Amino acid sequence: MPDFGRFWFTGGVEADVITTNTGSPGELLRLLRDGRPRTRAELVVETGLARSTVRARLDSLLDAGLITDGGNGASTGGRPASRLVFNARAKIALAAEVGATHATIAAADLTGALLATDKLDLDIAEGPESVLPLLITAWRELLRASGLDQLPLAGVGIGLPGPVEHSTGKPNNPPIMPGWDGYDVPARVAADLGVPVLVDNEVNLMALGEHATCFPHAQDMIVVKVATGIGSGFISNGALHRGAVGAAGDLGHILAPNGGDAHCRCGNTGCLEAVASGPAIAAKLHASGLDAQTSADVVALVRAGNLEAGQAVRQAGRDIGDVLAACVSMFNPSLIVVGGSVALAGEMLLAGVREAIYRRSLPLATENLAIVPSQAGIDAGVLGAATMVVQHALSPAVIDHQLTG
Amino acid sequence: MPDFGRFWFTGGVEADVITTNTGSPGELLRLLRDGRPRTRAELVVETGLARSTVRARLDSLLDAGLITDGGNGASTGGRPASRLVFNARAKIALAAEVGATHATIAAADLTGALLATDKLDLDIAEGPESVLPLLITAWRELLRASGLDQLPLAGVGIGLPGPVEHSTGKPNNPPIMPGWDGYDVPARVAADLGVPVLVDNEVNLMALGEHATCFPHAQDMIVVKVATGIGSGFISNGALHRGAVGAAGDLGHILAPNGGDAHCRCGNTGCLEAVASGPAIAAKLHASGLDAQTSADVVALVRAGNLEAGQAVRQAGRDIGDVLAACVSMFNPSLIVVGGSVALAGEMLLAGVREAIYRRSLPLATENLAIVPSQAGIDAGVLGAATMVVQHALSPAVIDHQLTG
Repeated sequence: MPDFGRFWFTGGVEADVITTNTGSPGELLRLLRDGRPRTRAELVVETGLARSTVRARLDSLLDAGLITDGGNGASTGGRPASRLVFNARAKIALAAEVGATHATIAAADLTGALLATDKLDLDIAEGPESVLPLLITAWRELLRASGLDQLPLAGVGIGLPGPVEHSTGKPNNPPIMPGWDGYDVPARVAADLGVPVLVDNEVNLMALGEHATCFPHAQDMIVVKVATGIGSGFISNGALHRGAVGAAGDLGHILAPNGGDAHCRCGNTGCLEAVASGPAIAAKLHASGLDAQTSADVVALVRAGNLEAGQAVRQAGRDIGDVLAACVSMFNPSLIVVGGSVALAGEMLLAGVREAIYRRSLPLATENLAIVPSQAGIDAGVLGAATMVVQHALSPAVIDHQLTG
Repeated sequence: MPDFGRFWFTGGVEADVITTNTGSPGELLRLLRDGRPRTRAELVVETGLARSTVRARLDSLLDAGLITDGGNGASTGGRPASRLVFNARAKIALAAEVGATHATIAAADLTGALLATDKLDLDIAEGPESVLPLLITAWRELLRASGLDQLPLAGVGIGLPGPVEHSTGKPNNPPIMPGWDGYDVPARVAADLGVPVLVDNEVNLMALGEHATCFPHAQDMIVVKVATGIGSGFISNGALHRGAVGAAGDLGHILAPNGGDAHCRCGNTGCLEAVASGPAIAAKLHASGLDAQTSADVVALVRAGNLEAGQAVRQAGRDIGDVLAACVSMFNPSLIVVGGSVALAGEMLLAGVREAIYRRSLPLATENLAIVPSQAGIDAGVLGAATMVVQHALSPAVIDHQLTG
């Protein structure tokens, strides 16, 4: 067939996001973020830009400390050319994953790698004016204790246990967060820390964390959290799908085929959360005379080899799989990642999920579908929060704005 | 709070797609595609680029016929400056929506507007070697009859009634298309027409057509087609979500809460399609002694005021809404568009859909959700196919490749 050049086969939507390198400082930095040291001459070849342009852009990145001298390249006869390399320690990203009763906080470098972490107890129901100062104090203490307090901050990322309007950082009618609805979280935190603050739902950030650190090549994936509640985060075309009001991924309140008339805390009946969450499984076991109230109790019973607990977790997996089967038909993901405290029970949960998905989905949609346990583990949420900050702070638009006004 | 510039509040993912204008011909064309005539001086101001750069880029677009002289601008004292305007008739996009027994074909300009359309009968089961030559002959005749055959072609867009691997244009295990699996549709069509050929699932293209022509500002929307089968197309973050193997949007084979043990042609039981498609509704009415076999029969009965037919369509709407309620919880769309031949029955279907979605979804997710009938109507598929071609052919990457090598 005729040769239409390398773009002939590219669909229209994707083609619109292919951009040529303008040689702006931000776009040169995007190249260097892979961590490979390059000489100025190599960057001229790689970008096709004028030598003088590349030199000027690199100088501004060097001045900002975002790249540094990374040793000498191979000599080509004369003086060996120095290599430039991305400086991942130029700034620190602060991150927090906030739950109902505790938070995990972290300081990360500009690759999103965690340099220091800590945990603190809190009560989300005490409201933002009480909780946010606790976080700010804890971050400052973490920076001091880890000797990172001399480095500038790139920004702050916060995951909250409810829907968040990402563009403003304001929680949107969060059911378990009294006092937070519409509260300007970025303004409150930025007033103390003086850097950009990004906020999102914590399950979205789990998905971002799994995607960025463990599955960067997955274009379409679902990350499921099974804990006190059941939620999910969804990556579409390589980016988080947040939905119209930040409420996407609400797996827990979908009608479970096996949901019957189980009462849910949302006021409806038959919700997935009412039959397959940690407390729902515990309630079933408790009714059978076992000592179980929380996800942790359920996991402990399964790990101790209790048959009834194992069966209950497997059935919860089937119930979750029944609902995920609909999501597989709609999204056609290549990957489903299952995490959260109930997932610590191990293979029992995953086996139930797989069983139901394979029973209900078309073969085409499951042919190349992987269903795996969380790889990022309990740090997925803070990793996602740190990734969100880094993606923002190092985006070409932000870098160019900072360096060229 | 501190001023972080206009980008401080932008989430990381979105910030990565903000690009500065490089002044490449393709990016200048992107500006001009809004149809507003501009003088060279106005373009210099708008882009911030050097006058000589803008002049050279515009010359290459003028040479290619993609922009033309659009009359004079306001005089600023001296000779009035000529205005340049996008030439939507520079090239023609060919489009087809192919169904099981017929196709709609069209020729469109570079805004995606349809200039000429036609319909033809075919049998998709006769395979690509039979069907594609029919399309090619019909397109050529359409161009001749409408006097458009002197204009160059921008490309060809084809919607097929099955899953398509969009990157290669090959159907992927399509259930109702014997002989098409893995067939290189773009190569076959390009061998005759000599231009890029893009292929996608026809319901995806319905979604693209509705989005591009009627709801360009909807970032997250679902377009549902209720006809012989039930399918959907999903726009996420403003772009089509096609899924890992092009199988996304398969609403019809999700378990319907009301599906019972109804047998589906896919081999499973209880699928939405087995209870709510046109033939499924017709079969119910037929069993009650009414003369109904197809979607058209059902619609005719409803329009004639038959109560039983109206009730059956409304129940089908509820069944579809039950499944869509799960999609609303997962996607949080701002818009659901309902089309397809059964939707011609009117408000009965939509009323059922709305009833079920509002009963099952969380208030936050439905607060700003609009559920509307198809606006693009029966041309949605070809409009989407034309849009796919135009988005590709006018993308900066393709334009720059053509004009600068």
